[in-house]
Amino acid sequence: MDVRWFIFTIWFFPLIFAILDTSQDKQTFVVVSRLESEIENKTTEIIEYIKNEEERNETGLAWNWLAEIVDDFGHRLLGSESLEKSIDFVTENLKKDGFDNVHTEEVPDLPHWERGDDKVTLMEPRVFPLNILAVAGTDPANVTGEVIVVKTFEELDSTNAEGKIVLLNPAWKGYFGTVQFRRGADKVEKAGGIGLLVRSVGPFSIGSPHTGSGAAKSTIPAVCVTNEEADLLERLIKRGKTVVVNINLKSRNLGKTTSRNIIFDITGSEKPNEIVLLSGHIDSWDVGQGAMDDGGGMAAVWQAMLTIKRLSEKDPSFAPKRTIRGVFWTAEEQGLLGAKYYFETHKKNESEKFFFVSETDQGAFRSRSLKSKFNFKGNKNEKNRMQQIADFLTFNGIPITVVDSNLQGDVQFWADSGVASVNYVSDQGEDYYFYFHHTHGDYMTIFKEDDLQYTAAIFAALGNVLANIEDW
Amino acid sequence: MDVRWFIFTIWFFPLIFAILDTSQDKQTFVVVSRLESEIENKTTEIIEYIKNEEERNETGLAWNWLAEIVDDFGHRLLGSESLEKSIDFVTENLKKDGFDNVHTEEVPDLPHWERGDDKVTLMEPRVFPLNILAVAGTDPANVTGEVIVVKTFEELDSTNAEGKIVLLNPAWKGYFGTVQFRRGADKVEKAGGIGLLVRSVGPFSIGSPHTGSGAAKSTIPAVCVTNEEADLLERLIKRGKTVVVNINLKSRNLGKTTSRNIIFDITGSEKPNEIVLLSGHIDSWDVGQGAMDDGGGMAAVWQAMLTIKRLSEKDPSFAPKRTIRGVFWTAEEQGLLGAKYYFETHKKNESEKFFFVSETDQGAFRSRSLKSKFNFKGNKNEKNRMQQIADFLTFNGIPITVVDSNLQGDVQFWADSGVASVNYVSDQGEDYYFYFHHTHGDYMTIFKEDDLQYTAAIFAALGNVLANIEDW
Repeated sequence: MDVRWFIFTIWFFPLIFAILDTSQDKQTFVVVSRLESEIENKTTEIIEYIKNEEERNETGLAWNWLAEIVDDFGHRLLGSESLEKSIDFVTENLKKDGFDNVHTEEVPDLPHWERGDDKVTLMEPRVFPLNILAVAGTDPANVTGEVIVVKTFEELDSTNAEGKIVLLNPAWKGYFGTVQFRRGADKVEKAGGIGLLVRSVGPFSIGSPHTGSGAAKSTIPAVCVTNEEADLLERLIKRGKTVVVNINLKSRNLGKTTSRNIIFDITGSEKPNEIVLLSGHIDSWDVGQGAMDDGGGMAAVWQAMLTIKRLSEKDPSFAPKRTIRGVFWTAEEQGLLGAKYYFETHKKNESEKFFFVSETDQGAFRSRSLKSKFNFKGNKNEKNRMQQIADFLTFNGIPITVVDSNLQGDVQFWADSGVASVNYVSDQGEDYYFYFHHTHGDYMTIFKEDDLQYTAAIFAALGNVLANIEDW
Repeated sequence: MDVRWFIFTIWFFPLIFAILDTSQDKQTFVVVSRLESEIENKTTEIIEYIKNEEERNETGLAWNWLAEIVDDFGHRLLGSESLEKSIDFVTENLKKDGFDNVHTEEVPDLPHWERGDDKVTLMEPRVFPLNILAVAGTDPANVTGEVIVVKTFEELDSTNAEGKIVLLNPAWKGYFGTVQFRRGADKVEKAGGIGLLVRSVGPFSIGSPHTGSGAAKSTIPAVCVTNEEADLLERLIKRGKTVVVNINLKSRNLGKTTSRNIIFDITGSEKPNEIVLLSGHIDSWDVGQGAMDDGGGMAAVWQAMLTIKRLSEKDPSFAPKRTIRGVFWTAEEQGLLGAKYYFETHKKNESEKFFFVSETDQGAFRSRSLKSKFNFKGNKNEKNRMQQIADFLTFNGIPITVVDSNLQGDVQFWADSGVASVNYVSDQGEDYYFYFHHTHGDYMTIFKEDDLQYTAAIFAALGNVLANIEDW
């Protein structure tokens, strides 16, 4: 059945029954109507406005906004000049857009790691350079050793790894079921291993090694090898060959650095101290151009807020009652450090009450099926409301399912403290996203123009509804 | 409709009608029966034997055969030690298998090109290293220039390229509609250009640059850039930025080299001088491990011939009447040079008559739909026969369509001289194959175990039928 008919049916018939059923009081109908009008309130116009960018000669508005940033500055590793220049550029542009309260907030004491000219070479049974990316946090090293392969930590525990380089070559069980192996250097070190080779954390590869955090807690060198070469090394070992690898790394930790979160608001007209937070992160790894992770999240939030701002300038009835706050976090890749610092420094601020928090950081792709979801954390009332918004979006051609989940990314801190929280994950977010994630392939080419546009529509709907409803 | 029913219908009812129609002579029925029995003749048993490798505890027979070669020797660039070592290893193994007439034939005067430590760096508007692979045949160079972008050769003709580095960034129109741009250095040089950057010839990329032949006819440096960075450079130029690139190549031409084709036979029991040729090529580019291009083709031909050989040793009625010849060509990547030399040196040999020639070099993937095809060149009788074989395979769960095509790869020379010719291209051969083709991703990981197995079944069917039919 066409999903729009399904949604129509589940909305329409209860309404008709409520109207026709004159034997009971009208409470149900009134409640349904109020909820409906609170969800609908301007949201249709906002979504239509975003969908109709072609008519305004601004096709690919968010796509082009993001392309200019990532093309001009490139990837944005914590500690790099390009990250800080990007922060300056984006902040200036947000001021030009006319948002309220545009500023940055410094985040101190962040880990500064820099990739060097790292080489990993298969020495036996034949000599050739492996296609690798160091795991962030790893330090200069030059070790040569025999490679053993295990597929799980349990297998590592029951293997003599003393003096060996350990290849962790796990099966792909989704990102959150696999990423612990990239962070496995400390376990390998405890087992006596002298180096870690870990299969890239992704379901698909074109000789495309992956990177990410995970080596800061150990002193042994750690690198991601491609899926293809992880399989190759495993096959050689299983055929009884002695496999010897040299790991020669120049990557290094450089102490501490500072960076900045970017904050921009549309100040609420009635409850300016209550905040509806839409967010993404501006930092990236130092591969590709950080377009997908998480440039896309930023761009979607930007277009969502720009749309509400533009419409409310033309017609004050679009002005949100609560403050809609956009934040572009820094230092996400090192463990949500920008968001954590913001949470810690703002949580005792009594003039700010976070009503709702959200992020998208798993690919700002256009939703094309009900496999797209709001990963939601909150109470039952809040979930019902989120379901109404999801149904409304679905009815408007942006299918969304609401799923209970503790995976809240940068807004985890608020979610854990009791604020209703959503992370948008598109139907391409669990698998396709990880083809490119933390690889040399993280470029604008991944996104179609309507990906960022339709993700913006989701955040515009969330922002508009949640800034204007009376209560949950 | 289920395709098996479709095939059943088109075979079954004409037979019934032929039997029932007593008013005409039985010629039609007799002809149909003879054709049928000639196609069927042992082919079912051969295909079933290949399908049942699990029962014989040799699951992934061809996959493992190939993995050992490409894991132990790696990629096999013309002129490299690894190619010649692989040729020795494969030849020895074919002798151990007990094939007839196993030998190599030297191919002289081949171009020897070697990849060096090539760097291409964006200098303006910001400095960063581009992700490239040199086009084979290019020589050492160090040039810096402004980049202009064109999408077609027509656009190049109408652009002033004097002193410029030209980025050819064409739309993907399938490999054979796009590869001419990788070979465009001579056109760029004639237009006054000082260097060529060409978009990688593939429909999809994860920061995965492509390589291939194409620069030997020009003196300017030529490199493939990734799809992602081709798009990036084009965007920068279209935004009015001056884009300057340094091309610093160490790759070089080293004169001439020799290599060898590998030949192995199952000698025909009745017409040993008539040859049914099954082939693939053993050389590869120097990226990945040359598993897909064309290790897979070799492995499928090997399993096909091994199967017929094994069965005919157990039961002489499986022995082919014509000689089935396997050839693993060398120097395919430089322009079918091994096959061309073989054709030239054998064409006047009156003791050899090529009855049929074939190759697979576009991914030895298991066919899963009727989009898989025999690219066929030959006359009407031959095509009818090929259609019968395709129908038979389809009926046995290996769907194949017969398509007229002049794209015959290594066996083009025979096809052009009038020998019936087939190139197998699976339903993944036009698109998915080119995700990996000539990239760092050409590894065993691409193939599922049954890909090579089911491709082997196709070549075993072709070999068995065409070695045993009376005539076309």
